[in-house]
Amino acid sequence: MQKLEETIALLSRTPATLDALLRGLPDTWTQRNEGDKTWTPYGVVGHLIHGEITDWLVRTKIILEYGESRAFDPFDRLAQERESAGKSLGQLLDEFAQLRAQNLDELRKMNLSESDLKKRGKHPGLGGVTLSELLAAWVVHDLTHVHQISRIMAYQYREAVGPWQAYLGVLHCQGHGS
Amino acid sequence: MQKLEETIALLSRTPATLDALLRGLPDTWTQRNEGDKTWTPYGVVGHLIHGEITDWLVRTKIILEYGESRAFDPFDRLAQERESAGKSLGQLLDEFAQLRAQNLDELRKMNLSESDLKKRGKHPGLGGVTLSELLAAWVVHDLTHVHQISRIMAYQYREAVGPWQAYLGVLHCQGHGS
Repeated sequence: MQKLEETIALLSRTPATLDALLRGLPDTWTQRNEGDKTWTPYGVVGHLIHGEITDWLVRTKIILEYGESRAFDPFDRLAQERESAGKSLGQLLDEFAQLRAQNLDELRKMNLSESDLKKRGKHPGLGGVTLSELLAAWVVHDLTHVHQISRIMAYQYREAVGPWQAYLGVLHCQGHGS
Repeated sequence: MQKLEETIALLSRTPATLDALLRGLPDTWTQRNEGDKTWTPYGVVGHLIHGEITDWLVRTKIILEYGESRAFDPFDRLAQERESAGKSLGQLLDEFAQLRAQNLDELRKMNLSESDLKKRGKHPGLGGVTLSELLAAWVVHDLTHVHQISRIMAYQYREAVGPWQAYLGVLHCQGHGS
């Protein structure tokens, strides 16, 4: 069971975590992917920005206003390719931090009660979900992408580590859909 | 192929990344594990400290001084249980940052050449390795533990996310040995 203040505590850390990890790093780490059409760390930050604009808090409001009578809009997982065009990683990190801070400020001001958290909405793919589940998924979505970024960066040194490859768990991660 | 300055760039970020992610978070996130004898984020920081004291830079010096004539000492993967006893997470984060900064300072002062990076040492489990591989493994070891910490934290909300479990990759990660 989640507590709302624990959820907000973790959500508030993600921009500074990615800033500390990524800002100013050589492109080797931030602009390379895992082959084919996989994502770069740069692309992941763009994806997180799109989520702040169109997903988590927007869906919170849809649940509170419409309940299950109106399904959420589907999430565009490729939007960042358009929206990040021409922006530096530093700009994206700033934008993510600003949007997340605004969204958490708005979330806190909603003063959600236990009964609010039980309210139900309709996900276009998953069906019925609760507001509590949506907010927990927001956190775990952040963690999925921290997990992914660490894996993308490790991939760049998969050969450089030589025999250590056997010992380093992140090099054996298959991505699990992200 | 790694470049030394790229390696050092990433190694220098890890303490601030973990600080931004973990300092002051509720114990729900930092003191819980994935069941049985798995590690907590708190335990992982202790493990990283032990690596700074006994592993990466120590092994660098052994390679430069002894080559393959002296194997590295085995790494104690449980040392942090003794060494972290009684310390707060904030103390451990400070200690890790200080040790990492000292070690990178010392590494920079070594002015390692391309031929130094090709020098060979003897790992007690893996056999012959190069200094270049050791330094790349130091980076990927950091990333393995960022990957692990994000997974341990996500695990705490594995039920709270409800149907979103299907979409969130980090909840499907099996750990791959860490």
